[in-house]
Amino acid sequence: MSSQISLYIVWFVLCVHSRCSVQSNDSNKKPNFIILFMDDMGWGDLGCYGHPARETPNLDKMASQGLLFTDFYTASAICSPSRASLLTGRLPIRNGFYSTNQVARNSYAPQEVLGGIAASEVLISEVLQKAGYRNKIVGKWHLGHQAEYLPLRHGFHEWFGAPNCHYKYDGKIIPNIPVYKDHLMTGRYYDDYKIDHETGVANLTQMYIEEALVFLDRQAKAKQPFFLYWAPDATHTPLYASEKFRGHSSRGLYGDAVMEIDYGVGKILDKLKQLHLDDNTFMFFSSDNGAATYAFTEGGSNGPFLCGKQTTFEGGFRQPAIARWPGMIKGGQVSHQVGNLMDLYLTMLDMASLSRPKGVVFDGISLLPTMLNGTKKDRPVFYYRGDTLFKVRLGQYKAHFYTWNTPREAQDIGYHYCPGQRIDKVTTDQMANYTQAPLLFHLGRDPGEKFIIPSHTAEYQTVMPRLLKTVHEHRRDLRPAKPQFNLCDLAVQNWAPAGCEKINRCQMAPMSYLYNCTWPY
Amino acid sequence: MSSQISLYIVWFVLCVHSRCSVQSNDSNKKPNFIILFMDDMGWGDLGCYGHPARETPNLDKMASQGLLFTDFYTASAICSPSRASLLTGRLPIRNGFYSTNQVARNSYAPQEVLGGIAASEVLISEVLQKAGYRNKIVGKWHLGHQAEYLPLRHGFHEWFGAPNCHYKYDGKIIPNIPVYKDHLMTGRYYDDYKIDHETGVANLTQMYIEEALVFLDRQAKAKQPFFLYWAPDATHTPLYASEKFRGHSSRGLYGDAVMEIDYGVGKILDKLKQLHLDDNTFMFFSSDNGAATYAFTEGGSNGPFLCGKQTTFEGGFRQPAIARWPGMIKGGQVSHQVGNLMDLYLTMLDMASLSRPKGVVFDGISLLPTMLNGTKKDRPVFYYRGDTLFKVRLGQYKAHFYTWNTPREAQDIGYHYCPGQRIDKVTTDQMANYTQAPLLFHLGRDPGEKFIIPSHTAEYQTVMPRLLKTVHEHRRDLRPAKPQFNLCDLAVQNWAPAGCEKINRCQMAPMSYLYNCTWPY
Repeated sequence: MSSQISLYIVWFVLCVHSRCSVQSNDSNKKPNFIILFMDDMGWGDLGCYGHPARETPNLDKMASQGLLFTDFYTASAICSPSRASLLTGRLPIRNGFYSTNQVARNSYAPQEVLGGIAASEVLISEVLQKAGYRNKIVGKWHLGHQAEYLPLRHGFHEWFGAPNCHYKYDGKIIPNIPVYKDHLMTGRYYDDYKIDHETGVANLTQMYIEEALVFLDRQAKAKQPFFLYWAPDATHTPLYASEKFRGHSSRGLYGDAVMEIDYGVGKILDKLKQLHLDDNTFMFFSSDNGAATYAFTEGGSNGPFLCGKQTTFEGGFRQPAIARWPGMIKGGQVSHQVGNLMDLYLTMLDMASLSRPKGVVFDGISLLPTMLNGTKKDRPVFYYRGDTLFKVRLGQYKAHFYTWNTPREAQDIGYHYCPGQRIDKVTTDQMANYTQAPLLFHLGRDPGEKFIIPSHTAEYQTVMPRLLKTVHEHRRDLRPAKPQFNLCDLAVQNWAPAGCEKINRCQMAPMSYLYNCTWPY
Repeated sequence: MSSQISLYIVWFVLCVHSRCSVQSNDSNKKPNFIILFMDDMGWGDLGCYGHPARETPNLDKMASQGLLFTDFYTASAICSPSRASLLTGRLPIRNGFYSTNQVARNSYAPQEVLGGIAASEVLISEVLQKAGYRNKIVGKWHLGHQAEYLPLRHGFHEWFGAPNCHYKYDGKIIPNIPVYKDHLMTGRYYDDYKIDHETGVANLTQMYIEEALVFLDRQAKAKQPFFLYWAPDATHTPLYASEKFRGHSSRGLYGDAVMEIDYGVGKILDKLKQLHLDDNTFMFFSSDNGAATYAFTEGGSNGPFLCGKQTTFEGGFRQPAIARWPGMIKGGQVSHQVGNLMDLYLTMLDMASLSRPKGVVFDGISLLPTMLNGTKKDRPVFYYRGDTLFKVRLGQYKAHFYTWNTPREAQDIGYHYCPGQRIDKVTTDQMANYTQAPLLFHLGRDPGEKFIIPSHTAEYQTVMPRLLKTVHEHRRDLRPAKPQFNLCDLAVQNWAPAGCEKINRCQMAPMSYLYNCTWPY
């Protein structure tokens, strides 16, 4: 036994046919919300999703106390668009988190990009703010780093964390990777907030945990409903973990980072209990995209699914997802409802009995009926790569209109999205166009998308028209937003964020020079 | 929610540092034993091992009430040798379940083979028989089908099932695939015990369940300790399930078969409870080898592991394994102890306080300390393919001395053991010899055996000598048995098993003609 704490599974009969009797929710008392949002964590990384290491006792406990989704999706196989979709309830093609500079390329928000979350987008944080919530984001934002895009302009009252990814920059003069405390930069990743390049030791996750706990304490005292968006980034390369966790996992540094985050989830669960917030707090766990298979042993696991981050195969899009709300959601549930990060928006509005913002087209649905009563709704999944719809799922069926493994430019910088996996016609080296005769898969019999259902079969001929109709309807109503990720400029990097003066971290920006961003993904 | 029954996981602290207090076992009262032994079921097929379909509520419940092993192995990636190893506690190279006709070929017991379990082997059933147990096998035997090899000659009192696999034979005159009731054949698979070739509907699993339940009832009345070896074969192609289960799974016919077996496990669990046998019955669940990846969507899942049945990659050797004994083994445990099917023998002797047969070299260990006290013992796994040691595991490290994907002859009959998986130097088309510079993998960081640890690294240079020493010691003491699978003869097929007269199923055997068996695997 590797651990003092182990798994105990108890079974019981759920009310499925009849409406479950749940505690009546005091309509004056708004529920609290916590979203635990992971970075590059895969479907297969948790014990309760079958990872052989079983090193996530607290997340497994959270699942035991709530509802685990087997078929939950992201809206994008890459970070920024996924995060934008979570907070807007809309596909990237609708909220602008894409580029038209290249066909079918994933694009995210690095420091050179001009764009970010448009003022016209109504984030869930904004709706909750208007409804009297106190909102805090801890960790990674990634919806644009220029002043107008930062979280405190978009419904959050508080922030501790970074606007972008924490890449290692080379060279002597490098822009800040700022850590913000609310409106102001308080230091640089690597320098003021140390990450040891050799060992991967850093204390950032501990800080992110502490920020969450202090916030919960404060909100409990204030008796004000809250939305905590907890988005640590230790599982995104370059990986890191604190001294206390370094070397503890059987999986290496990635596992150490997972164990530390899991520990943090345990602390948050303890705190909720201690503060008697359990019964009135909806907590949701998921991840932004599939595990980064290109990070080799430094990346997570997508379980039995194909490829990972950056791709529209299941390994890129299917996410771990756990809902917990002891006062309302029965524990011990497993749901096969097809869910999406975009559903959180309308689900939370439903939970708080708030109206939807007018005139906004949503791509999500409310999952509250599923969570409370076990109802199941047939609904599609659209798998975009950049500006292009690559695949669609409806029921157990998935059609591939385009397939692509790793673009040449990504290979040139050492990326391979499907290491060890190779399927004829599916993990194609070039972007393959199957729109005239889409490839069909049955995800129940074949979760790994290995076996193409031949087009001459009755199954194909029955199913494909339904899938094509779904896509036709989706396209008919779609008005793509202005792409946010077309323009770049080195001058817009984080040279001198607000607050840099006080800590002597301001740098001179280079001359402004606008150019079309390109993406190797 | 797909099911009325869902997962509820509760966590509690286990006694690890101190010896757990367990109910004192009346030393006069021998425990009962049930081994639930699956055919071609993979590590990733159960809900509690993360299968997205989560269609095994009863096995998941069994895990919740007992101990789930994450790192449990078979002794062979193929059926007969695996079954022989389970019952002898010894590697196939030691109990004779291999062939020297070809180098490194898996060989099993089809109807043409002369060999079977040698009289000199002391099966666990024989030891238990002498100790006063009543032993029954339900389902597949596969330790030789000639009269001298059948279960009632090797320690079993009762049998209902088949000696071999249930292949579909072509042609008009085909040998029996006999179903035995104890000493006598009672009918033919497909004919007397129907399997519908088109739909896969058959009632055999229901019969196997009923046989188990009747036996339990009888033993409870007799107050005699028992060993029930329950080995259904519905998950081996050709797959089958009863009308009641056909079409119920989201995974197709394979899933239907799994669901029906899981239902059977539920009935056995209910029966134990009803008969008050729970506290004195050790029940163990596992499978003979990895899922048959070559069966495409008709095969099971090996989770995140590489390849499957027939191979020495983790997908071929790593097995689901659950131990349950409410009176003795604490529920809710997950163990990373490296276990092996061969361990059941000494574990059961330990449980029943029986002496080991003298002069027998065992390859298993007793897992009782692990099950009771959570102790963990470092011990190797030897991965043989036929007569050749392909790989070894010690700790988290695995060395590949030889690698091979699918032999040419197997490909010629449509087999591919690693569909969709392809790793340079690892899933080789030919048998590749790395004995001079073995490939090294870390199964914790890389359970999928995708990333070779370079030989110039300090890690390799520290670890490899330990692995080589383990192999050296193993080989030094090894005395291979006479191979049982070298000789074949069409005349020895099941033309006229005992009992065929009564049911008018005797057939004329062809002229005897001895030849060297060959194996495409």
